[in-house]
Amino acid sequence: MVNTIDTSAINTIRTLAADVVRGANSGHPGAPMGCAPMAHTLFAKYIKVNPKNPHWANRDRFVLSNGHACALQYIMLHLMGFNVSMDDLKHFRAIDSKTPGHPERGHTEGIEVTTGPLGQGISNAVGLALAQAQLAATFNKPGFEIFNNDTYVILGDGCLQEGVAAEAASLAGHWKLGKLIALYDDNKITIDGDTAVSFTEDVIQRFESYGWHTLIVADGDNDTDAIAKAIADAKAVTDKPTLIKIRTTIGYGSQNEGEEKVHGAPLAADDIKNIKSKFGFNPEEQYAVPKDVYNFWNTRAEENAKVEAEWNDLFAKYEKEFPTEAAELKRRLAGKLPSGWEKALPRYTPADAAVATRKLSETVLTALSDVVPELIGGSADLTGSNLTRWKKAVDFQHPSTGLGSYDGRYVRYGVREHAMFAIMNGIAAYQGLIPFGGTFLNFLTYGWGATRLSAVSNLRVIYVMTHDSIGLGEDGPTHQPVETLALVRATPNIYTMRPADGNETSGCYLVALENDHRPAVIALSRQNLPQLEGSSVEIVRKGAYVLQAQEKPDVVLAATGSEVAIAVEAAKALTQDGLKVQVVSMPITDLFDEQPLDYKLSVFPKNVPVISVEALTIFGWQQYSHTQVGMTTFGASGPIKDVYAKFKITAENTANVAKDTIKHFKEIGHVPELLCQRQ
Amino acid sequence: MVNTIDTSAINTIRTLAADVVRGANSGHPGAPMGCAPMAHTLFAKYIKVNPKNPHWANRDRFVLSNGHACALQYIMLHLMGFNVSMDDLKHFRAIDSKTPGHPERGHTEGIEVTTGPLGQGISNAVGLALAQAQLAATFNKPGFEIFNNDTYVILGDGCLQEGVAAEAASLAGHWKLGKLIALYDDNKITIDGDTAVSFTEDVIQRFESYGWHTLIVADGDNDTDAIAKAIADAKAVTDKPTLIKIRTTIGYGSQNEGEEKVHGAPLAADDIKNIKSKFGFNPEEQYAVPKDVYNFWNTRAEENAKVEAEWNDLFAKYEKEFPTEAAELKRRLAGKLPSGWEKALPRYTPADAAVATRKLSETVLTALSDVVPELIGGSADLTGSNLTRWKKAVDFQHPSTGLGSYDGRYVRYGVREHAMFAIMNGIAAYQGLIPFGGTFLNFLTYGWGATRLSAVSNLRVIYVMTHDSIGLGEDGPTHQPVETLALVRATPNIYTMRPADGNETSGCYLVALENDHRPAVIALSRQNLPQLEGSSVEIVRKGAYVLQAQEKPDVVLAATGSEVAIAVEAAKALTQDGLKVQVVSMPITDLFDEQPLDYKLSVFPKNVPVISVEALTIFGWQQYSHTQVGMTTFGASGPIKDVYAKFKITAENTANVAKDTIKHFKEIGHVPELLCQRQ
Repeated sequence: MVNTIDTSAINTIRTLAADVVRGANSGHPGAPMGCAPMAHTLFAKYIKVNPKNPHWANRDRFVLSNGHACALQYIMLHLMGFNVSMDDLKHFRAIDSKTPGHPERGHTEGIEVTTGPLGQGISNAVGLALAQAQLAATFNKPGFEIFNNDTYVILGDGCLQEGVAAEAASLAGHWKLGKLIALYDDNKITIDGDTAVSFTEDVIQRFESYGWHTLIVADGDNDTDAIAKAIADAKAVTDKPTLIKIRTTIGYGSQNEGEEKVHGAPLAADDIKNIKSKFGFNPEEQYAVPKDVYNFWNTRAEENAKVEAEWNDLFAKYEKEFPTEAAELKRRLAGKLPSGWEKALPRYTPADAAVATRKLSETVLTALSDVVPELIGGSADLTGSNLTRWKKAVDFQHPSTGLGSYDGRYVRYGVREHAMFAIMNGIAAYQGLIPFGGTFLNFLTYGWGATRLSAVSNLRVIYVMTHDSIGLGEDGPTHQPVETLALVRATPNIYTMRPADGNETSGCYLVALENDHRPAVIALSRQNLPQLEGSSVEIVRKGAYVLQAQEKPDVVLAATGSEVAIAVEAAKALTQDGLKVQVVSMPITDLFDEQPLDYKLSVFPKNVPVISVEALTIFGWQQYSHTQVGMTTFGASGPIKDVYAKFKITAENTANVAKDTIKHFKEIGHVPELLCQRQ
Repeated sequence: MVNTIDTSAINTIRTLAADVVRGANSGHPGAPMGCAPMAHTLFAKYIKVNPKNPHWANRDRFVLSNGHACALQYIMLHLMGFNVSMDDLKHFRAIDSKTPGHPERGHTEGIEVTTGPLGQGISNAVGLALAQAQLAATFNKPGFEIFNNDTYVILGDGCLQEGVAAEAASLAGHWKLGKLIALYDDNKITIDGDTAVSFTEDVIQRFESYGWHTLIVADGDNDTDAIAKAIADAKAVTDKPTLIKIRTTIGYGSQNEGEEKVHGAPLAADDIKNIKSKFGFNPEEQYAVPKDVYNFWNTRAEENAKVEAEWNDLFAKYEKEFPTEAAELKRRLAGKLPSGWEKALPRYTPADAAVATRKLSETVLTALSDVVPELIGGSADLTGSNLTRWKKAVDFQHPSTGLGSYDGRYVRYGVREHAMFAIMNGIAAYQGLIPFGGTFLNFLTYGWGATRLSAVSNLRVIYVMTHDSIGLGEDGPTHQPVETLALVRATPNIYTMRPADGNETSGCYLVALENDHRPAVIALSRQNLPQLEGSSVEIVRKGAYVLQAQEKPDVVLAATGSEVAIAVEAAKALTQDGLKVQVVSMPITDLFDEQPLDYKLSVFPKNVPVISVEALTIFGWQQYSHTQVGMTTFGASGPIKDVYAKFKITAENTANVAKDTIKHFKEIGHVPELLCQRQ
């Protein structure tokens, strides 16, 4: 390493990382210090981003998959001229700061995806690279490479051990995503010590088995030329993603370099002073950035601004030559849906046939496939069951396979739920596409690590979850969700949807697509359901509504999805017994929570017993209902009718429970106020 | 394949599988028909089990990882003489039958682990093989190979795509589990069609990268000699697990053999007739088992009974020579804890120092490590944070590594939560060991697919989940659980534990260990907590209890874990304001649900407002409390004090909320009855 400014810039990162973590009295200095050479080389020589316009569409994407090393990322953003000040660095991990403990998309400019939970970042990056490939194939024209950005990742041993990363890497190899380049910080240390204790596989061989191009840099602490050459070699291979294994020393420069000690806690003050001396910095000065380092990055920022300016010129020409495509692309990048798109949503009357909501979902997707062309969907190898593939869909596949093309919009994820969800997060984060993906509702929890991050990161990702209760029948308790919707409802910033018929299914897609800052889980039935009297598409925007109104009811029956028809049947029986019944359908309970109190009270009038019916856990329903018809055990294998009967999710039992509840409240002298009636 | 009886037995499986699935009008005929040769070869020539004593300790373990193919497993159990009758086969997938849609441990004799959710079975098998190796190293003596069984798995493409299987396979290679042999049904078909659409990696190369021994059988449809030889070769390699890739034809014999069509639906009646003709069976006869096939299996059962008898003789001698070890082993295999073990649980008084419950958990584990030697624990690379490693622990490692030994009881799982949980299920299923494993509570949902199966399968698995709320502070919303405990509480047959101090931590372990048919999730704090006045170890068996009693209280404050101390502080403030306050601690809410109503009413008296405090989602608390102090958004990065203040999880806010609630109920004229007060 002969270039003085490179050395200086790298050592600036190292000393600054030690100071920033020490200042917070919390955090991870080791990885930033060890990764400083690769990060510097990558950002100084390759990454095209404009700090003054972090949203430039064709910027290179960078993902710090080992998100605990985010002091590194914040320092790079600061040096490069993004909106992260030295004061922000000094407030690392402080409450409400711009520099939280792990990088959060939408919170700090320049952060592409939220990372920290291991394995997510590299999997998001596969989604970012997929989106780039898809949009390039869709919008690029001869002479107009509108989309040609690279996606870079830094990741550590932890990410490589996680199954989600293995799933995503296998897909990246299958898809031949040549613009994906991962720099593996091979520091041989995890929290439990030497990787010898639990991580002895041959990573290079594994990635070759996935179809990746692999490279090794022997001295990642010093040999920036080798790092630079490896990245250049990676860029030259265009039909395979590349993994560059870079041998580094965690906490390089510290007295404990190469040991676990430097991983997750601030270095001692003396140690930091010695590091600074070793690197030719003033041991007494904190948060030092040499002027020539700032100058270097200023120059780099100017170069990068020029790169964007050239792209803007190119796009202006593109706009003249291809006005339709340009307008379409601008609409998509602005996150706006095509005007009038919602008119394409199918509508139904009670005269229409009974159909499973998974099938109704397929009809919606087919109806929207041309109208909302940014939709890109797939399934975790359950296409024929999830019914996620619309008519005329083309698979997203590398053209050489003969199985599809890069402008295809149907994604074959294989049996890889967790990677599917994480890749969807990456696709949504790229902008310009709206991802949806299907599996059985029960297997949502195979990938919850990613779903939770859809919600944390405000990403519009649509989960098409079929076979949504014990109603799936014969597959039995291993496949029948019980606890799953409670989980989703307990999670902030995600809509839990369970439509009861065709109109509600259309309404759920309406809400899911309108909300560009929030994921949605749509739970769909395997079994056929009747088209209900009283449902509509738009009413779903209220989250819950009165399906069958009743003046001064004796009882309210509230249900979701496949159980609304059961509630309607129970209401009929109760009416015959002389009771006045209001029936409520609650397709999106958490959207109902957002309604004003007077609306809520029109749905659930005070002093009226409420019985809820849902063929999933009763846990959590107590905020809306006094008595719950639902599950308190796991399900059972058998034909649907037998399963519903076994667990008493029937109209008859619902009617009996309603009568018992009315009687009980008469005895105690009051109908308890429900939480949803209070605020 | 020259042996007539083998051919006949294999074709019996194939035709029977077609009939069984057709009879149920639901299920998966393709894989059983394709896997018939490998299953027959494996069970006829290798697997040592005694159908008359399915619980024989040293039996070979068999796992059908592609559990949807369970018609195969039920047929094998029937033929071999297990307690699965032809009538049971005729009730395949019927409600309450012995032959549900996927194999369920504890439901059907001979089923070792519950499978169906893909990737779980092979990961369980790693746990079964680990348990075998650990118990062999612990109990075997020169000349006394008490434990030497093999663990066999059949798995398909689906299992190999799942991340959990990748994690577990990497560990199996690391641990050199030579007695683990996996037969990969390479039929090139998944639900979405040809594996070319999403699964093009080189599986053999991948498993070699993990350190596995690999073999290939080119014609798994006919060449049973090659299958038998491969298994023999696998057994000969004792320091590596083996993957045998066996090329098969899904639905072999059907007119649609080799296609997706035969995967997940009954074959047509005509097709089945043709298959029977092709295989020399009477096309009109259903559920046919030739007499010589039954005879063959009867003979095999007798041989196998002899194998067990020999082992029993060996064990009788062992018992004479090593009476202590034999008694200990018998105790463990009976699932009984050592008498008086609970006396080792640490007990505390309010004079003791404030300590984090994760640290108190470490003290429990250290205290129990010698007393309950069947405890085998580990962490997903967070040992120093989870504090799961007791003093004097030895790592479970292959002796050649120099890092531990096979009789070690501390397991380094690496950053692989999902595999850790699935492996723990396998360890628990083996019998003789009680597994526990640690990670951050937030990452419980990285492996929920396996945790759910701990509950479905009635396995005593202890989840040691630290950093259990926003109280973890600086790591921020990506690491702070919010929805996680609601998920566990919404799940049947699993205890959700959140102890508040030392006595409650001991009490949680007491309940977790006493319940041999149910997993437990123990949520533990990062931060220090005071030892509470009024807590005890045994009271935790009630799930919730009155920590500070009050005659005719004006209000009840109920809390869990780290928030109990906040409730105590709020009670003090309210008492100063002249209110009468009862404080309730709820370490195990779902165990409280099991108590009789009069006990519940002693904790939560009728007509008294209840305020709950928990630094996690308020979702689900409405069954116990009228107003909730808790989370409705994700958390934030910052020092713990700032984070609690930001989200108002404070004594001050709790006291204010209590006053508001009391006032509100006075206004409406009643204190609503809570669900927990009703039944």
